[in-house]
Amino acid sequence: MRKKLLACVVALSVAGSVTAADRPIAPNGIALYPDYMSWKVVAPSYREDKGQIRIITGNEIAVAALKAGTKPLPDGTVLAKVAWKAEKHPSFPVATEPGDFVQVEFMVKDAKKYKDTGGWGFARFVGNNLQPYGKDKSFVAECFGCHTPVAANDYLFTKIVKTP
Amino acid sequence: MRKKLLACVVALSVAGSVTAADRPIAPNGIALYPDYMSWKVVAPSYREDKGQIRIITGNEIAVAALKAGTKPLPDGTVLAKVAWKAEKHPSFPVATEPGDFVQVEFMVKDAKKYKDTGGWGFARFVGNNLQPYGKDKSFVAECFGCHTPVAANDYLFTKIVKTP
Repeated sequence: MRKKLLACVVALSVAGSVTAADRPIAPNGIALYPDYMSWKVVAPSYREDKGQIRIITGNEIAVAALKAGTKPLPDGTVLAKVAWKAEKHPSFPVATEPGDFVQVEFMVKDAKKYKDTGGWGFARFVGNNLQPYGKDKSFVAECFGCHTPVAANDYLFTKIVKTP
Repeated sequence: MRKKLLACVVALSVAGSVTAADRPIAPNGIALYPDYMSWKVVAPSYREDKGQIRIITGNEIAVAALKAGTKPLPDGTVLAKVAWKAEKHPSFPVATEPGDFVQVEFMVKDAKKYKDTGGWGFARFVGNNLQPYGKDKSFVAECFGCHTPVAANDYLFTKIVKTP
């Protein structure tokens, strides 16, 4: 794992981005989706308790289904939640803006494969090294436990933003 | 202007989205860019004083130049700042999420055309009717006045988010 991580870091330093071959992989086998910042916006989010400001993005399947109000979301839906440290703008402190990158998390829909966790696969990659979170695949109990209160909304806290 | 606005509202109701032919137009001639929610993320933002949570997106020219650190940003750069009412999540009140759509604002770079306002054209469209803001083209003095303190950063408060 450490060798793979080092290889990732080297690849990241050289290429300036994560390529398909170098994607870090969570203990449950879910690999980072390198294009998450190119996906469309689902919603912004602010967590005062964690001192984080976040963006949720979604792949095409996700965004189409969320706009259509399809429930549950279909297999192939992938959502990314990207978190940065929340900081006051140096020239304009009434504005809270993103500072350092904290982590990126994914929810991946496959109703059969992930039936034990509401049809969703979870993964988190932490810090500039995109370190996969979790000692082993039991880490998902943490993610799923937090999302269980919103089971009625297909385990999602986030709703897609409303625009005219 | 009123007829055009009514036409816009009708078109919006029928089509469900703004088409090129129906775009509302600001008093200075800047028309709404209909694809702003399909553009890439530049950054999230939270304005506690205004009770708004926001996303800044950018067209391809904008995102490429911001990532490259190009200063000043080149002609053809367009940034959109989309604002929603900030609300506490009903099931999880430590999270602040977007409620109703408030407005979308644009900054359009054309160093010659907009030389009197730092090379930037400004426009704002308010509410679900996307009502253009401003009685006449003098409204830009308001926008430019607010942005003048950050003239050294090409009049931008926003920096593109850092991701590994």
